[in-house]
Amino acid sequence: MKYIDENSITTAVLQRLESCKNPRLKEILGTLVIHLHDFAREVKLTESEWMAGIEFLTATGQMCDDKRQEFILLSDTLGLSMLTVAMNNAKPEGVTESTVFGPFHVAGAPHVALGADISAGAAGEPLFVTAKVLTPDGKPVAGADVDVWQADEEGLYDVQRPDLAHHQARAVLRTDAQGNLNFKTVLPVAYPVPTDGPVGKMLVATGRHPWRPAHIHFMVVAPGFERLITHVFRDGDPYMDSDVVFGVRSSLIRQFEQHAPGLAPDGSQQSVPFHTLNFDFVLQPV
Amino acid sequence: MKYIDENSITTAVLQRLESCKNPRLKEILGTLVIHLHDFAREVKLTESEWMAGIEFLTATGQMCDDKRQEFILLSDTLGLSMLTVAMNNAKPEGVTESTVFGPFHVAGAPHVALGADISAGAAGEPLFVTAKVLTPDGKPVAGADVDVWQADEEGLYDVQRPDLAHHQARAVLRTDAQGNLNFKTVLPVAYPVPTDGPVGKMLVATGRHPWRPAHIHFMVVAPGFERLITHVFRDGDPYMDSDVVFGVRSSLIRQFEQHAPGLAPDGSQQSVPFHTLNFDFVLQPV
Repeated sequence: MKYIDENSITTAVLQRLESCKNPRLKEILGTLVIHLHDFAREVKLTESEWMAGIEFLTATGQMCDDKRQEFILLSDTLGLSMLTVAMNNAKPEGVTESTVFGPFHVAGAPHVALGADISAGAAGEPLFVTAKVLTPDGKPVAGADVDVWQADEEGLYDVQRPDLAHHQARAVLRTDAQGNLNFKTVLPVAYPVPTDGPVGKMLVATGRHPWRPAHIHFMVVAPGFERLITHVFRDGDPYMDSDVVFGVRSSLIRQFEQHAPGLAPDGSQQSVPFHTLNFDFVLQPV
Repeated sequence: MKYIDENSITTAVLQRLESCKNPRLKEILGTLVIHLHDFAREVKLTESEWMAGIEFLTATGQMCDDKRQEFILLSDTLGLSMLTVAMNNAKPEGVTESTVFGPFHVAGAPHVALGADISAGAAGEPLFVTAKVLTPDGKPVAGADVDVWQADEEGLYDVQRPDLAHHQARAVLRTDAQGNLNFKTVLPVAYPVPTDGPVGKMLVATGRHPWRPAHIHFMVVAPGFERLITHVFRDGDPYMDSDVVFGVRSSLIRQFEQHAPGLAPDGSQQSVPFHTLNFDFVLQPV
């Protein structure tokens, strides 16, 4: 232990972890130490750069509260979140892929009937969504609970509007006997992740924009199937190839078709242009 | 960008960093991303483990305030601080080695005359220190400012005692024309790093103790020489081979000799046992 230098110290730390009785913790921490030390040696980290890193991580932790999770945002913007999601949710060909959960899900969103207008007053161009929940061999999944959440035309989720007394553009629906799902909402738009914290500074310093392409979040839960957490992305979005959190997967991109004012899929007459989206979710049996 | 999986995402993140105009930041962040992603893939990090990591880092940041730096403590206990110090302060054979700075230095400690009792009331067995500050070829360095700080017999630094109105066991002395330094203080003892935060939980979870072997901190500044930040460790300490922050270097260990009551090096009569320490600092010319 005593003959410490910048190379021997890695072995010294790993030897110290030999006392760990939890083999998984030992594996994770040991691998972390090897990579942390290799990183510092490879870039020849200076003492002032080390201190800048300490200060960045400290500020990131101090930005967090019950409404803001800056460390998740850091993980998202460095691709670690999407890597973890992809690695833990590999799906066979034909099954709907997962993407990042994001910070805006709310447990206990209102359950609404099929066909409902879930916008609940959120501003935006009308969007009519139809979807099916299916097994890999195309059979309908009845009684699947589908949690939906999205931003409004200003790029804000309801939880980002502290004055709102009720949920907007957020609901849980249950598929019917044919696995069908339909609801009305507003057209999602691209929005920036919060940039008023350390992650925003990192994005500026690296010349990166903070935008996510327009999408709707879905979480689909049905007995006998793996839980699916995903988005549907709106094709044509200018940020599709540069999502700041690396959440886009080509299989999740769909046309949101624009229509002139007139008869909508729900039989109503729309006086403004409206959009339609159709998407099938294919669940993986457990 | 769209065909993201747990392998392709690393290239996607690195491509995004191509926009960074600061080549050093790009190098550091790019290397960090490679190691962060490799770490997650190698251990096959689960989503709940990822979340546990997010929560640990968040709690670490939130433990920090103007008196406590839990991220530095984390860096210290994972060996990153000592690695960085060793890498950036390599010394030729014969020059005094560096070790970690630690969190307890105070800028602007009182300047005292040679021979002073710097304990200023700190509790502990008397210790008489004599030292020389030398060039690599053994010539004295006159007028070197030597910052000294250490814990008392309870293992506490003065800054850890909020009720103290003045500094204890902390001072700045200047070497005389022969490069000599001498002062009276108290015998340092081993002490634990703070364990009431996330780092303390990590140490418990990994079966590690929180102790540092007894030492005195020194910072030596002299025109024409590299600044030296180091400790002198007390030989025989039971934690010498397991310093929780990996700061021990064999070249920095010295005998603190114990003496029976009687005549002390400063000519005083000591009625209790006392200790003496002699140590030469050898500075590297700039």
